[in-house]
Amino acid sequence: MFVLLNLKAYPCDPTEIATVAADVADETGVRIAVAPQAADIAPVAETGVETWAQHVSGVEHGSHTGSTLAEATARAGATGTLLNHSEKRLRLAGIDDAIRSAERAGMETIVCANNPRQIAAAASLSPDFVAVEPPELIGTGMPVSKADPDIVTDSVEAAGGDVPVLCGAGISTGEDLSAAAELGAEGVLLASGVAKADDPRAALEALVEPL
Amino acid sequence: MFVLLNLKAYPCDPTEIATVAADVADETGVRIAVAPQAADIAPVAETGVETWAQHVSGVEHGSHTGSTLAEATARAGATGTLLNHSEKRLRLAGIDDAIRSAERAGMETIVCANNPRQIAAAASLSPDFVAVEPPELIGTGMPVSKADPDIVTDSVEAAGGDVPVLCGAGISTGEDLSAAAELGAEGVLLASGVAKADDPRAALEALVEPL
Amino acid sequence: MFVLLNLKAYPCDPTEIATVAADVADETGVRIAVAPQAADIAPVAETGVETWAQHVSGVEHGSHTGSTLAEATARAGATGTLLNHSEKRLRLAGIDDAIRSAERAGMETIVCANNPRQIAAAASLSPDFVAVEPPELIGTGMPVSKADPDIVTDSVEAAGGDVPVLCGAGISTGEDLSAAAELGAEGVLLASGVAKADDPRAALEALVEPL
Amino acid sequence: MFVLLNLKAYPCDPTEIATVAADVADETGVRIAVAPQAADIAPVAETGVETWAQHVSGVEHGSHTGSTLAEATARAGATGTLLNHSEKRLRLAGIDDAIRSAERAGMETIVCANNPRQIAAAASLSPDFVAVEPPELIGTGMPVSKADPDIVTDSVEAAGGDVPVLCGAGISTGEDLSAAAELGAEGVLLASGVAKADDPRAALEALVEPL
Repeated sequence: MFVLLNLKAYPCDPTEIATVAADVADETGVRIAVAPQAADIAPVAETGVETWAQHVSGVEHGSHTGSTLAEATARAGATGTLLNHSEKRLRLAGIDDAIRSAERAGMETIVCANNPRQIAAAASLSPDFVAVEPPELIGTGMPVSKADPDIVTDSVEAAGGDVPVLCGAGISTGEDLSAAAELGAEGVLLASGVAKADDPRAALEALVEPL
Repeated sequence: MFVLLNLKAYPCDPTEIATVAADVADETGVRIAVAPQAADIAPVAETGVETWAQHVSGVEHGSHTGSTLAEATARAGATGTLLNHSEKRLRLAGIDDAIRSAERAGMETIVCANNPRQIAAAASLSPDFVAVEPPELIGTGMPVSKADPDIVTDSVEAAGGDVPVLCGAGISTGEDLSAAAELGAEGVLLASGVAKADDPRAALEALVEPL
Repeated sequence: MFVLLNLKAYPCDPTEIATVAADVADETGVRIAVAPQAADIAPVAETGVETWAQHVSGVEHGSHTGSTLAEATARAGATGTLLNHSEKRLRLAGIDDAIRSAERAGMETIVCANNPRQIAAAASLSPDFVAVEPPELIGTGMPVSKADPDIVTDSVEAAGGDVPVLCGAGISTGEDLSAAAELGAEGVLLASGVAKADDPRAALEALVEPL
Repeated sequence: MFVLLNLKAYPCDPTEIATVAADVADETGVRIAVAPQAADIAPVAETGVETWAQHVSGVEHGSHTGSTLAEATARAGATGTLLNHSEKRLRLAGIDDAIRSAERAGMETIVCANNPRQIAAAASLSPDFVAVEPPELIGTGMPVSKADPDIVTDSVEAAGGDVPVLCGAGISTGEDLSAAAELGAEGVLLASGVAKADDPRAALEALVEPL
């Protein structure tokens, strides 16, 4: 299982959480990555944790003010990027371009989508992973693996076997993680459950404990 | 005169250019800032140069994946931000929100706009600076101060005396800079003229020499 | 007072409401306009009511698939257009372009904005009207004239006397309308209060009765 | 072959072209549809020609100012809609939503895309047609069937046999149309070749003559 911890724009200390994530990954052997703000990629990567961008733009070098150039995030230490997160929806052509930008910079990609139909579309663009996050579950605290298990199994089928499927939205316990794995998910996206926890280490350890 | 060097997504070494800019600023006493990719803010700021973001999002801490949180850029070392650059146009409410976000993080702001009418609108939102960049001149190599001097004087008038006006688009020589100053501009936005120069130090020194 | 009735994408019969609005305008002498979906402009205009577009694109004739060409809405019968409604936010340059497009097609314009600061910015672009709709009041049923009267008087002051100010958000009774007028508003934006009323005629008559 | 004539925001008389298209369709038996501005759908549909929208929004009835509600275009006479045209790119979730909106209103859909990879993604969302328009050919006058025939055959393969493929970009002669058909396309998107022709009837007749 691949566990990606998305720090969004949370008021957390990204290097502190990164250090915790690096420790828990080392101790447990579970693959855990942290996705901080672009400006925090360098200090997060210096902790030794696997570091991802939250987004890269589908542009090449050139006149693109305010873009997030894949090469710049890679140079700062990112080895992968989320794309098309529900909080950063991209145009279809933009997802395609951004995957190509990430590839060019040697980065892995996770393309997020709402439902199995969009997961099939996303998988057609050949990212490294797709992630299904039903918008109706985001922020409910209800794990997708419990609220709507069919959406996970249908997404795995829609992805066609070539692209591994992660699941997000509401995953916060080890039990949720195990349930997701049993449904065919090869990883999970985490956010507030760990990033906003009083004790991020305890939250992360409890989460990966069943693996 | 305030000289802001926008590194966009150019294939340059941002810390090398930052070091040059810091040196030239020290030697000449001219205020020179460098605006790199968000992921490059920390290493650029470590050179000691005044460091700006190319953009910040109009969001507060929270669930905003792929945003550019003002506080994160400030923590990395940015003390100001461009907003609404012609390559990163924002909604009217988004400019207002982003100025507020930057203020909250203790950062200065430059709001870019196309023409004197939009400069007046931008100035109404109380940024620290406005910058006029006529889109028809961008990339022509023709300085606005020569191609259309009225647009600078009209922008200074439109800004109403409270908000200093910078000018962009086509500034590349010391003569352009002097001409802009004579028209009432209190600074310039630079980009490829220095960032893509074979000898950035010579290009920057020649530019600020008349000041 | 100018009363603009925005039909949004409501499941109403636009020509029925237009007929009612035309009648009430005739009977009372109050200026009442109706803004339907673009595809409904022609049948709405045929009722004789003053007809507005909900949006026009800031484009000229040319290759712009899926745009809303000002000239096409004018030919169908629209004599004005809303711009930058909170449900159709535009970029600063896009508002400027769209006002120019509307002028070219001989249409009046109302630019919506969130607060007095944005009202000042919108007024700088020289539309025919600006309209203040505080986002925190939209859909609350609480009229802006009661919930936050200062936002109306501050908007009138921010518009600088040259551009009349309308107010929206929560206006549904004649009392709200009178209160808005006393605060300096020269009109109101209405939506669900009339468009979704069981008896639109009674709702509209009650609303304009105090005028 | 299905011929869709996109009138974009061209300075043409939409009902005149619609009348021509209806006549040529009747005479030749070729399926020809016309996609005008939303405000022109009603008069175009009254000519008897098959009428399409250039875009519909992925929304249901409700508070959506400036949207293009599928039901409103259908009521005006549209029986299908283009989606994600290169001049109106949509987010992945937005394409999915808009296809569902069109289905709800009983309309057919064509989803445009840049390349075979994006065609596969578009086809996964189950529209009635997909259309491939390589951006590098748009406006060149060079038909895709000649400039890059592989992109058509690859798109047909990518669409997987379930979704018929149209091709756009540069089609203007009967020969182009035949070539497209031989490569497996089941229709074409036309625009300026007919809409801006001095004699639209002659242009359209010449185009469908080989069929």
